[in-house]
Amino acid sequence: MFEAAELGHKVSKATYKTEVPKLREQLLDAQFELGEKKPFPVVIIVSGVDGAGKGEAVNTLNFWMDPRNIHAHALGDPTDEELERPAMWRYWRKLPPKGAIGFFFGSWYSHPMRMHIDGGKSRDYLDSYLDDFLRFERMLADEGALVLKFWLHLSKDALKDRLTQLEGDKATNWRVTKKDWERYERYDDLMPVAEHVLRRTSTGHAPWIVVESTDEKYRNLTVGRTLLKAVKARLAEQGKPATASVPVQALDHADDINLLDALDYTKTLEKKAYKKELEKYQGRLNKLTRSKAFRDRGMVLVFEGNDAAGKGGSIRRACAAMDSRFYDIIPIAAPTDEEKAQPYLWRFWRHLPGIGKTAIFDRSWYGRVLVERVEGFCSEADWLRAYGEINDFEEEMARHGIIVQKFWLSITADEQLHRFNEREATGYKRFKLTDEDWRNRDKWSEYSNAVCDMVERTSTEIAPWTLVEANSKYYARIKVLKTLCKRLEEEL
Amino acid sequence: MFEAAELGHKVSKATYKTEVPKLREQLLDAQFELGEKKPFPVVIIVSGVDGAGKGEAVNTLNFWMDPRNIHAHALGDPTDEELERPAMWRYWRKLPPKGAIGFFFGSWYSHPMRMHIDGGKSRDYLDSYLDDFLRFERMLADEGALVLKFWLHLSKDALKDRLTQLEGDKATNWRVTKKDWERYERYDDLMPVAEHVLRRTSTGHAPWIVVESTDEKYRNLTVGRTLLKAVKARLAEQGKPATASVPVQALDHADDINLLDALDYTKTLEKKAYKKELEKYQGRLNKLTRSKAFRDRGMVLVFEGNDAAGKGGSIRRACAAMDSRFYDIIPIAAPTDEEKAQPYLWRFWRHLPGIGKTAIFDRSWYGRVLVERVEGFCSEADWLRAYGEINDFEEEMARHGIIVQKFWLSITADEQLHRFNEREATGYKRFKLTDEDWRNRDKWSEYSNAVCDMVERTSTEIAPWTLVEANSKYYARIKVLKTLCKRLEEEL
Repeated sequence: MFEAAELGHKVSKATYKTEVPKLREQLLDAQFELGEKKPFPVVIIVSGVDGAGKGEAVNTLNFWMDPRNIHAHALGDPTDEELERPAMWRYWRKLPPKGAIGFFFGSWYSHPMRMHIDGGKSRDYLDSYLDDFLRFERMLADEGALVLKFWLHLSKDALKDRLTQLEGDKATNWRVTKKDWERYERYDDLMPVAEHVLRRTSTGHAPWIVVESTDEKYRNLTVGRTLLKAVKARLAEQGKPATASVPVQALDHADDINLLDALDYTKTLEKKAYKKELEKYQGRLNKLTRSKAFRDRGMVLVFEGNDAAGKGGSIRRACAAMDSRFYDIIPIAAPTDEEKAQPYLWRFWRHLPGIGKTAIFDRSWYGRVLVERVEGFCSEADWLRAYGEINDFEEEMARHGIIVQKFWLSITADEQLHRFNEREATGYKRFKLTDEDWRNRDKWSEYSNAVCDMVERTSTEIAPWTLVEANSKYYARIKVLKTLCKRLEEEL
Repeated sequence: MFEAAELGHKVSKATYKTEVPKLREQLLDAQFELGEKKPFPVVIIVSGVDGAGKGEAVNTLNFWMDPRNIHAHALGDPTDEELERPAMWRYWRKLPPKGAIGFFFGSWYSHPMRMHIDGGKSRDYLDSYLDDFLRFERMLADEGALVLKFWLHLSKDALKDRLTQLEGDKATNWRVTKKDWERYERYDDLMPVAEHVLRRTSTGHAPWIVVESTDEKYRNLTVGRTLLKAVKARLAEQGKPATASVPVQALDHADDINLLDALDYTKTLEKKAYKKELEKYQGRLNKLTRSKAFRDRGMVLVFEGNDAAGKGGSIRRACAAMDSRFYDIIPIAAPTDEEKAQPYLWRFWRHLPGIGKTAIFDRSWYGRVLVERVEGFCSEADWLRAYGEINDFEEEMARHGIIVQKFWLSITADEQLHRFNEREATGYKRFKLTDEDWRNRDKWSEYSNAVCDMVERTSTEIAPWTLVEANSKYYARIKVLKTLCKRLEEEL
């Protein structure tokens, strides 16, 4: 795999001198168009042999181009805020918005590779990360990002020459440390692992590009030209990239039986019993959320449901049992412009709670497979791939120890009409009905189908959906609290 | 000061039962209007005697109101990301946007009060913080925030009763720790300090409201009603709050002599000398920014200047000497909607660099006293108060060890015309002139006056302006690099 990068590629001084100005002009033009139209973000990984000049290559591109919308991230050890959240959070927060270029040194690949080579972790351990990365990059590409992964290569001899040369020069010998020579000694351990990683994770939409880096002029020109070609090609495509996922499977139900119809909407609870149960479960929830065991975890609650199903009321009853210092409610409305410039899930990642905290989402990432699907706000391909992306997202949370619990509050069409009429009759403008509420109602069965598909595809053991019969508000609130308590008791 | 809060204020169960529903309705209505119109943010400090029920009071409000746009922040020890930045950064990042309510437990007052009472720090130490807080809250109020500060009070006896009572009940005894009793013992140390702090920092726009908290029903009702009254009053005001600062002093220059005209625009540098100097100073800057001493600091560079004065070129030459992993360029364009929902300086605070890093602002917070002043994008009161706010901002950076250096790149009107014409002649669309460029040019003397006022009022020893004669690009770039090197050599 690396043979082609040990051929002694070289560019003469004269060629470099004539080629660089031309390349720069073209890079600047492409970058200007990217920055003006903001059609997509560019995510670039710069990895490779230590000593191959990752920093120099990026510095050179920064100098050739307009550094104002280029951001370089060399993430070292995670900060404590990062440690409190799933591993990929630190990369999500640094993703370049549309129109910008983000360089990631080493990137998400660094940690598992190091753990495998130096930390004694198994190949299986490494591979499980690679699977995650494949899905992450697939998602980035599907969201429109241009993803390029450079591996700057040096043969073992070239590395030795380079270290010796840097060490011999007074101006650069500070750059060579004992660690560099140790890494040189372990070169033969790195190479097969690197080859494995590159082979497993080089895809059409996020390819690895191996660049021989013995000659820095060759390296710089090659990286620059590759970047230019890729950006120009994507600018020319306009709209969806050619590499976007094609969903292999649409949803097709052979009958009309659905989960929602199967619920028993007559379930109810008397006021007196409600008050007693409320006190009981709020007390239990209170104890659970301030237990020692909970302090090392975190919780993400998702509330979805029909309009007027009583999400707000259920959330309020759950919150009443918790300390406001340790939870945050995130009402999901239209995305802000900063959120629109990022992949779909970005606006949810940014709200993930730290350790011992709870985030309560009043509507959530499921908007993608509900309202966006039904109203056609996104393409079929977009919502079809969302099921998998959402499962990955929730799995990352769960693996990190976050307890994920999701509620669908379900009412019948009749009950909704009753509540709408009731709201229209009250004077409180905060309960006012919008035209949208009535419009959504007209699409009742489309929404029902979307909900059934959603539950079928995203109710997992680690992040289960609880369907809540919500025609009786009392019954619904208690069921939510009870479910929460039960789940927490299992987990803690 | 606390006498009025030791009178034994009390609310009967019956009164509470009739009053709470009425208050809740009104609070919900006010909150709905706040959330719909988003006219201002509400910043609430909840401080006071430990044991007075700060958490309970906020939990109660959360339950009474719609918790979805209320956020409660109990900031403990700073995270390492927070420690890398000026002390107020952690509060800036948690400020509620317009339309939302943010509760801060203890808040910015906690740290210096604790350091004074328990940490042996002097009264002067405390007072210097109080001055900062006064200015910070003044700024919040001027930016339109409704700021309320609650001090929940308990007499020493009432505190003793409360701790004894909590300890005696199996359900609550976990809440009383040794530390609580230690604090009780030190009650007499706290009170005079609290009184001093409240007296010094209670202002019309950010008043302290002392609430007797022996009876929790009285406490909850009082806090709720005070909040309701304040929000309703501000909603009724529409537009600028009655408490906004009135600038006492406009700028009035008695003659036409100005700093910019006094510059010698004939200063120039030959290409050959430029190349030599460039190499020399880039080498020096490179060494300085990777020195051990720099790793414990941080740097903020501000580039402002006439259109076409060559800011971008100067920035690129400075960056070329630095490692892209350790700097970030922040081009300041129109604020995003998330930024518009916050105080003016928020969008700059969010970009402050961590330790050892550099943030380069291509245009900056000075837009307030330049383009916003000249074009009338903000009121005279807004830009007049900005000088002081900016000086405070830069002082906070400097105190934290950040090296702040500001450049004004100045060209003559003739030179600008020459460059505009040149740009129109080139084919590169990235150099295209906009109508705005020409419009700005028509207001040359207004901009010049604004620049002179800005330099006069914000060039400080800790954050000096360097005026750069930029008719010669070579000369300007070298002057920037030279100034940077000199400053860093002094600081490191």
